[in-house]
Amino acid sequence: MNTPARISIAEAARHAGRSVEIRGWLYNLRRSGKIAFPIVRDGTGLMQCVAVKSALPEEAFEAIRNLTQESSVIVTGRIRAEERAVGGYEMEVEGLEVVQRIPESQPYPITPKEHGVEFLMDHRHLWLRSQRQHAIMRVRHEVIRAVRDYFDSHGFTLIDTPIFTPAACEGTTTLFEVDYFEDEKAYLTQSGQLYNEATAMAFGKVYCFGPTFRAEKSKTRRHLTEFWMVEPEMAYADLEEVKRVAEEMIVYVVGRVLENRRPELQKLERDISKLECVRAPFPRMSYDEAVKILQEAGSEIQWGGDFGGGDETVLSQRFESPLMVDRYPAAVKAFYMQPDPGRPEVALGVDVLAPEGYGEIIGGGQRVHDLDLLLDRIREHNLPPEAFDWYIDLRRYGTVPHGGFGMGIERCVAWICGLEHVRETIAFPRMLYRLRP
Amino acid sequence: MNTPARISIAEAARHAGRSVEIRGWLYNLRRSGKIAFPIVRDGTGLMQCVAVKSALPEEAFEAIRNLTQESSVIVTGRIRAEERAVGGYEMEVEGLEVVQRIPESQPYPITPKEHGVEFLMDHRHLWLRSQRQHAIMRVRHEVIRAVRDYFDSHGFTLIDTPIFTPAACEGTTTLFEVDYFEDEKAYLTQSGQLYNEATAMAFGKVYCFGPTFRAEKSKTRRHLTEFWMVEPEMAYADLEEVKRVAEEMIVYVVGRVLENRRPELQKLERDISKLECVRAPFPRMSYDEAVKILQEAGSEIQWGGDFGGGDETVLSQRFESPLMVDRYPAAVKAFYMQPDPGRPEVALGVDVLAPEGYGEIIGGGQRVHDLDLLLDRIREHNLPPEAFDWYIDLRRYGTVPHGGFGMGIERCVAWICGLEHVRETIAFPRMLYRLRP
Repeated sequence: MNTPARISIAEAARHAGRSVEIRGWLYNLRRSGKIAFPIVRDGTGLMQCVAVKSALPEEAFEAIRNLTQESSVIVTGRIRAEERAVGGYEMEVEGLEVVQRIPESQPYPITPKEHGVEFLMDHRHLWLRSQRQHAIMRVRHEVIRAVRDYFDSHGFTLIDTPIFTPAACEGTTTLFEVDYFEDEKAYLTQSGQLYNEATAMAFGKVYCFGPTFRAEKSKTRRHLTEFWMVEPEMAYADLEEVKRVAEEMIVYVVGRVLENRRPELQKLERDISKLECVRAPFPRMSYDEAVKILQEAGSEIQWGGDFGGGDETVLSQRFESPLMVDRYPAAVKAFYMQPDPGRPEVALGVDVLAPEGYGEIIGGGQRVHDLDLLLDRIREHNLPPEAFDWYIDLRRYGTVPHGGFGMGIERCVAWICGLEHVRETIAFPRMLYRLRP
Repeated sequence: MNTPARISIAEAARHAGRSVEIRGWLYNLRRSGKIAFPIVRDGTGLMQCVAVKSALPEEAFEAIRNLTQESSVIVTGRIRAEERAVGGYEMEVEGLEVVQRIPESQPYPITPKEHGVEFLMDHRHLWLRSQRQHAIMRVRHEVIRAVRDYFDSHGFTLIDTPIFTPAACEGTTTLFEVDYFEDEKAYLTQSGQLYNEATAMAFGKVYCFGPTFRAEKSKTRRHLTEFWMVEPEMAYADLEEVKRVAEEMIVYVVGRVLENRRPELQKLERDISKLECVRAPFPRMSYDEAVKILQEAGSEIQWGGDFGGGDETVLSQRFESPLMVDRYPAAVKAFYMQPDPGRPEVALGVDVLAPEGYGEIIGGGQRVHDLDLLLDRIREHNLPPEAFDWYIDLRRYGTVPHGGFGMGIERCVAWICGLEHVRETIAFPRMLYRLRP
């Protein structure tokens, strides 16, 4: 007799009618005196197994009957189509090896009953085994692949920017500081943008994609201290081109998730029809218009102020697709933002707000490319010019209009999955009071 | 008349016979009284342009004649096939807009003459514009894409592991420490492996891919303080499976670079025939055999010691494909390494040494999966068990044999590109005395 082939549960359909081996963990178990239905998970899916007492050696059947949640098992058996089973197939058990049986005296800590969020976060290393977390992580993986595929197929070169930076990109209050050997301080990057500007002058179109860090002292549902960001940057690009690329990329990413991760969205009970409404062209408005709308809706915002989370919700709920708001007051934006030539009090920047109140997912715009203007801005913001020497060089040697944006992956995943809080969008979230596990 | 379409130089072949617009920078210029040959780069390639005095307005021709290196220009003209030109096409100039002319008084700092490495490293933000750096960065991009494609198409789920960690994975002497708000310390990750072990128990096969950090106080040609690493981890896998996956992945990655980045390898004067020899099965030997070979070759290594760089070179130069050395003395390896059941003094670990003396590119193996053995190992290594509580949980709740490996991207790129030093394999290298730009 042949040894049964080892397969993953996701491949079961291709092996219908054959005896195979599955290696995984016990997810659930129903049983009676003569039959048991262990459900096994292996990370790729769930398989309902059918163990019939009369068809198995007694010890094997007893071992199955006595399995505990998350015990590790290797099961062999024949795959057959079964409409009523999860995944559409089930396995007639022919043999079982218990790799580790978890004793009842020290059971798996996460049970089907409700647990508090802090408990689950403390057990994040185990919580990730749940079907809901699987769905989120698979959507995240798809989002990341889709983002990379978009840029890779549109002429962008991936250039990883450094994590250790000698200077702050935007303000210094939210920086993490590191002792860099004896006599230096380094800061963990908050954005690869300044470096992207250098590499865009070398490669034309570039992107970086890595973790970024903010020492956010506030506990909100949209902030992590460590989060992943993709940042494209383009030479010879203006604000309109930045908006066009952001729009095209978002449409592509949402499309890919709808194409490949529909079962996961269903598991998350996401209203998929909302995502199906996302299409270009996205609604666009100026900051001026946004303020007017908000004031009419009762917000206390004044021209010159930043939007609060509530303001973003009011704006984004008016549209089915993400909303692009541009030309913010220069005073609330970073020193490198290019002013609108006709109205220097506003910057050629854009924020993209996800629909349904999921908040800002993209910020970007055109950068100052004129040497003198950049020097003025560095002075006005009281930044040390020597720290920006290399950045200023980019305006000395073949400067061109350029721009780009950054998209936070966790916020994007929270929106697509329909999650209230970003903490579940990353495997091991880092927050103000959360550094473990 | 239509406005000429804006194209990238890489697309020139598709536009032969048409007038188009190219936006870039002056790479080189030859000229006489009546004709000028500016070569323009745009990040996707080089385009030789032909500007004929009699065919252009006088100011336009003079502007071209007076261009300086790296000045930014928008050129319009007709594309035509020209065998002798770089890339096989040239452009008959019909119009030119100088975006910024760099004055002779403050010229572009990097000239065709030789510069010292420190000077080039200080000007890394500009050095990246050179053709050699382009070739390396494009190979790096291809390596990263190929690695991701390999894992994405072989059932691995991407799970990003945290950068901030509360405990050290391997030793504490090379850790970077961060003040994590008022009263906590965090350490920058040296490896995602411990977290990968948790997610492998959830997803079966996983990988993480991100920056990792080592406070290496030594200045060597193979070390960076910040480097990128891909780390797959598999549940229900043994050392042999780890080796099989490492081998298959390397063959795939080298194949992809040969398929898509041959011109870049030629630009780097890489001996491509060496890469074409890389094929499975890779040579395999035990540490015992390696020590014997080294001693016969005159090395001073004794059983129990770690290989020096010279030893690795001696071993790897005997073979055309990467060499897999397994079963190292347990004492020189990390606490989590599974001992060989028949010979507990050696660990079920494997290192992969690149050919031609490029050194170790992969380290991996099987992990301890037995709870009591892991507790012993944590004690023997004087590690604080409370810091590893969650990691120990993985042996309490459905433990299974598992393993994986880590591949350093910079070392892999150095090998494939044939570079002596890893500093050119990443856009902004970070080393002991190098935190800028």
